[in-house]
Amino acid sequence: MNNSFLQHTSSAATWIWYPGDFEIVLANKMQNRRTERGTFFPVFWKIDNHYVLMDFHKVFDVPEQETVDIYVEGEYNVKLDGKAFEGSPKQITVPAGKHKINIKVFNQANVPAVYVKGKTIVSDATWLVTFEDKEWIDETGKASDISATKWLNAGSSNFNSPTQLPSQFALPVKEQTAVSTEKGENSMLVDFGKETFGFIKLHGLKGKGNLSVYYGESKEEALSTEHCETLDRVKVNSTEKKDQTMELSKAYRFVNVQYDEAVTLDSVSMLYEYADVKEQGSFTCNDEEINRIYDVAKYTFELNTREFFIDGIKRDRWIWSGDAYQSYLMNYYLYFDSETVKRTTYALRGKDPVTGHINTIMDYTFFWFLGIYDYYLYTGDKHFIAQNYDRMKTLMDYVLARRNKDGLMEWMSGDWIFIDWAAGLSKKGEVSFEQLLFARSLETMALCANIVDDKDAATQYNTLAADIRKKLFDIYWNDQKQALVHSRIDGKQTDNVTRYANMFSIFFDYFNQQQKEAVKKSVLLNDQIQKITTPYMRFYELEALCAMDEQSYVLKEMKDYWGGMLKRGATSFWEEYNPTKTGTEHYEMYGREFGKSLCHAWGASPLYLLGKYYLGVKPTAPGYATYSVEPNLGGLQWMQGKVPTPNGNIELHVTKEQVKIKAAAGAGTVVLKSKTQPTGNNISTVAKENGVYEIAVNPGSEYVINYKAE
Amino acid sequence: MNNSFLQHTSSAATWIWYPGDFEIVLANKMQNRRTERGTFFPVFWKIDNHYVLMDFHKVFDVPEQETVDIYVEGEYNVKLDGKAFEGSPKQITVPAGKHKINIKVFNQANVPAVYVKGKTIVSDATWLVTFEDKEWIDETGKASDISATKWLNAGSSNFNSPTQLPSQFALPVKEQTAVSTEKGENSMLVDFGKETFGFIKLHGLKGKGNLSVYYGESKEEALSTEHCETLDRVKVNSTEKKDQTMELSKAYRFVNVQYDEAVTLDSVSMLYEYADVKEQGSFTCNDEEINRIYDVAKYTFELNTREFFIDGIKRDRWIWSGDAYQSYLMNYYLYFDSETVKRTTYALRGKDPVTGHINTIMDYTFFWFLGIYDYYLYTGDKHFIAQNYDRMKTLMDYVLARRNKDGLMEWMSGDWIFIDWAAGLSKKGEVSFEQLLFARSLETMALCANIVDDKDAATQYNTLAADIRKKLFDIYWNDQKQALVHSRIDGKQTDNVTRYANMFSIFFDYFNQQQKEAVKKSVLLNDQIQKITTPYMRFYELEALCAMDEQSYVLKEMKDYWGGMLKRGATSFWEEYNPTKTGTEHYEMYGREFGKSLCHAWGASPLYLLGKYYLGVKPTAPGYATYSVEPNLGGLQWMQGKVPTPNGNIELHVTKEQVKIKAAAGAGTVVLKSKTQPTGNNISTVAKENGVYEIAVNPGSEYVINYKAE
Repeated sequence: MNNSFLQHTSSAATWIWYPGDFEIVLANKMQNRRTERGTFFPVFWKIDNHYVLMDFHKVFDVPEQETVDIYVEGEYNVKLDGKAFEGSPKQITVPAGKHKINIKVFNQANVPAVYVKGKTIVSDATWLVTFEDKEWIDETGKASDISATKWLNAGSSNFNSPTQLPSQFALPVKEQTAVSTEKGENSMLVDFGKETFGFIKLHGLKGKGNLSVYYGESKEEALSTEHCETLDRVKVNSTEKKDQTMELSKAYRFVNVQYDEAVTLDSVSMLYEYADVKEQGSFTCNDEEINRIYDVAKYTFELNTREFFIDGIKRDRWIWSGDAYQSYLMNYYLYFDSETVKRTTYALRGKDPVTGHINTIMDYTFFWFLGIYDYYLYTGDKHFIAQNYDRMKTLMDYVLARRNKDGLMEWMSGDWIFIDWAAGLSKKGEVSFEQLLFARSLETMALCANIVDDKDAATQYNTLAADIRKKLFDIYWNDQKQALVHSRIDGKQTDNVTRYANMFSIFFDYFNQQQKEAVKKSVLLNDQIQKITTPYMRFYELEALCAMDEQSYVLKEMKDYWGGMLKRGATSFWEEYNPTKTGTEHYEMYGREFGKSLCHAWGASPLYLLGKYYLGVKPTAPGYATYSVEPNLGGLQWMQGKVPTPNGNIELHVTKEQVKIKAAAGAGTVVLKSKTQPTGNNISTVAKENGVYEIAVNPGSEYVINYKAE
Repeated sequence: MNNSFLQHTSSAATWIWYPGDFEIVLANKMQNRRTERGTFFPVFWKIDNHYVLMDFHKVFDVPEQETVDIYVEGEYNVKLDGKAFEGSPKQITVPAGKHKINIKVFNQANVPAVYVKGKTIVSDATWLVTFEDKEWIDETGKASDISATKWLNAGSSNFNSPTQLPSQFALPVKEQTAVSTEKGENSMLVDFGKETFGFIKLHGLKGKGNLSVYYGESKEEALSTEHCETLDRVKVNSTEKKDQTMELSKAYRFVNVQYDEAVTLDSVSMLYEYADVKEQGSFTCNDEEINRIYDVAKYTFELNTREFFIDGIKRDRWIWSGDAYQSYLMNYYLYFDSETVKRTTYALRGKDPVTGHINTIMDYTFFWFLGIYDYYLYTGDKHFIAQNYDRMKTLMDYVLARRNKDGLMEWMSGDWIFIDWAAGLSKKGEVSFEQLLFARSLETMALCANIVDDKDAATQYNTLAADIRKKLFDIYWNDQKQALVHSRIDGKQTDNVTRYANMFSIFFDYFNQQQKEAVKKSVLLNDQIQKITTPYMRFYELEALCAMDEQSYVLKEMKDYWGGMLKRGATSFWEEYNPTKTGTEHYEMYGREFGKSLCHAWGASPLYLLGKYYLGVKPTAPGYATYSVEPNLGGLQWMQGKVPTPNGNIELHVTKEQVKIKAAAGAGTVVLKSKTQPTGNNISTVAKENGVYEIAVNPGSEYVINYKAE
């Protein structure tokens, strides 16, 4: 393996740890904060733990003697050029010259972490770490064999002050007040005006007795003391008025506080808990409903972007790979926050041995690989691939060991084949959608193997990927139906056509143009094919339609579907929406009155669709080294917005006559269908077939392109 | 796999956890208490961590409604028949009838553990546990697939009170006083009279300044403030006299306390820290020197029997598989404490993935398997085999993946091939000793595979074992030398004969009788073959000689070697002893003046030799269901002693004319060489070839057998 991506550039001092360990432990803490009606409700898959003993080291060339401060989470020793200082020094002096510093840390309860700060000697991601140094001197003074020791670069995440202990990390909070409060005899119904998340704070609590807080994403839920999904119980015992903040943050718009007669309460506020990520992308257009949809999608995504990308804030609050995968894509068009993508990727993967699929779901293992494919495409970050490659390999080993006799993925004991929440969806035999995701995962492995220079593996993964892609068509393509069928059972193609494999094959470019056109008609726009009702799979369905230039159609769908939720008073987008339901039926799911999450990340897909398929910006080489801009108004009069890239934003303003574009970095190509030859300052256009023009865009300047939309 | 060994019998309430997790975490704590001259000195191999999320369950048939108290280390929920109680209840009521109780616990910092106590519902080792229950209901109410969930019985270890928290476990201590104290100007040299272990306590400390405690296993070491191996630094700042106990327990006979002028100190005592195991075996004879050797061996072993069987108390204080293996054998003749064997076995093995040999040493991986072979032979405990079998398999998978092209074990990157501390010992090519241990490890796997009814695996392991045993003779046996040679390099047998593989092949019964006799002469009693200087390999050398009826020779060796240490003032037995050295030379090792450990477990081997080869007691079927007693006085006038078994002791008194024996359980066979037909009460003898008589012994009665030793 090529280690050229280790040892990337130095930075200021920061806390460091074994890559993934902080993330895994933080995920444990976060995911185990879920409660259901006051009861601890943990995940049902294996979760992992940190390495308790860690060696950190780096070689420095020190210009002149310096003193170095050392802060450590754990018991530790410090060695300079292999010789230990006595005790656990908080400060050492390092003479001028080339020196190796080792810090070995043991911490059972928390992640071993180190912060080192001298004039030139600082802890950062260029340090090397291992959980097994095999470094030993035998009785003759002969050094042990350390040739098999595996080093990675340290993990870090902007904990840049010595007092900012990684083990103490918590999201920031800010005070929020209610928009209205209805006071009852011994109760208070508080409305925060919109879906929110955080710690309820009870003010002026006094007396002796019991108090309950019933949370509701809807008013009905808060009022349903028997069926609301989350609640808190408080024992009050105070002769003085005092404030009390709940221990766990929760999701709600309404809270219904009920208390015994001997208890009094002045008011209720909350501490809004949020991830401090920066908004970079934007979208505005002439259609106010679309603008509202974009804003509520943004808020929905903000609420679900926490320590990690989670599924929904009320109920699961867990990291689900399929959900996270969509959050990554939305993130590239809003925050471009790579830290949260990496943190989520580490947390989902956990550690070896692999004992089950990610979240126990076969498709979710594959979405994990796909997430890395996209991460590389959007960021161009080879270093993360190198750091993560061994974990990718062992997870793929697990998958490969579970192929059936035909080399395909089929249900095995312990697997959950999810695909989608859809009535009567068959999981039997070999499901086409799983093979499709498997093929893309193998392509991801081949790509990453090449990045780390593991040539033999790259060849093997490519061969396997080609084989599965071929089988996808050999086994599932039905000429009569002009579609991929859903599955094969006992060696026979089934009759059933579902949308899943077909829509992914469009935007994965697995279909040729002819197949795409056929499938658009036979599947995507065919009402006979079972409809998708979750925003989860709507995400990909609408993406496929956009990839087939159906932006006008999709715009109407957006207004119907997301607009429909807004009309029903949604302040964030839901886990599921079925326009045929009425009233409180909308809140039901999983057989529970208020089982549905009214703020689910996968509900925010317009963020992605509007950025990628209306503004039309996407990378064509890793990290936006090159990119294309293919604006499509889809019936809008005008639109404008920003799309973030690793090196700054691409800003766009689009009408039917003019495209203004300015990009901070990368080599862009604006692709326009125009009735006339586009003109403008400083542009060189290339006519293509079918009246499509390509205009090269360099960073820094604003381009004003005049054209005439068809 | 056959689970018939799960669900073993109920007992009183006790704290339970995932098997191995308490042990692994305790080992982490213990092994990381090592310091070297005041500096934290951790192990250099991977150490593992507990599962943070655990499901405990059991189905009970409750005769009448009962209340059940619940104590948990961690956050938890409790379910009765799948339905959760609100919050984390400390007491629940269970109605009469058949009910399933689940407790799910999350604990990041400590091992998730549970203590449950009702009238009939109690937590014990019959509960089942898993770290991955995969138990989930989908949106339709369909239960998820839990068919792949692996359950084990809970681990436990006599934490029988609710307040005895596993996370707070510490060995007991008792006060000990010095036998002499030399007071200097600002110093105190304290002698505890013999090697000891524990926390130094400073009495009447007052003033302001620095104080240092220098520890010595010898007086010279304590006085050598520059070179003693362990020390403590104390900052004194008190106007009142106070006592202070050191934070870490240490090994020493002498302590040298030195302090600043402005500091005063009244006296020094200690808290002796020990494992509370019961002595069961014993040995006494007419030779006072042998009795003294036995007693000092016993004390040496007591000091090294702690939370686990460790190598030596001063320096490493680590769990080394090769050292632990010998402790297991000694344990079977002194404490018969199965808990410490199991605990040590779990701690050494750690968890998957296997990333290196145990302690990084190839031979030590094999000794781990051998330890299980013996554990089963001595205890007959199939349940532990069933609980441990998966870990055995994955460790053997690691080994099998590291065979060379000829299927043999040869050095690979990262391996340490130890064998013994011996000058110039070659580790090149394929070393015969490693193949021998490999063969026995495969035999162990086959044995255990049969126990858990994994028939296919048993066949495979047996085939592999037979192949390696055949190769051992095909490749290494040299007819001219009448011995196994040390190694093969580049396909060629080397010239060198060492004792290792030859002596093991004797007591493993790999040699036939003719080979044994030949090897005794050509190797064991041949001064041309490189001598063994460590008690570690002396252990096996003397065992091989005893197995060849050389008890008289071995008795002299014991008196020379162990008697030699006693004559040099040893109060416990050493890591290494070379009679040609003088004075403080005896304290040197690893290039350090006081590097040698003067209290090393492997120095206590007379415990084993006297029990197994003089009293002559050993199991011939698992758990002493049958056993043989083949007393051999080796030149002694008389000897008497006890040998523990799982169901009570075997008591013996032996002279040249009479054997008295009484056994608590098992079917024994006393094997005697006698010039005359043995007589006695109630015995039935069977004459055998060569004047060897066998006398059957049943439990309960005392047998007095009169005979005439040859």
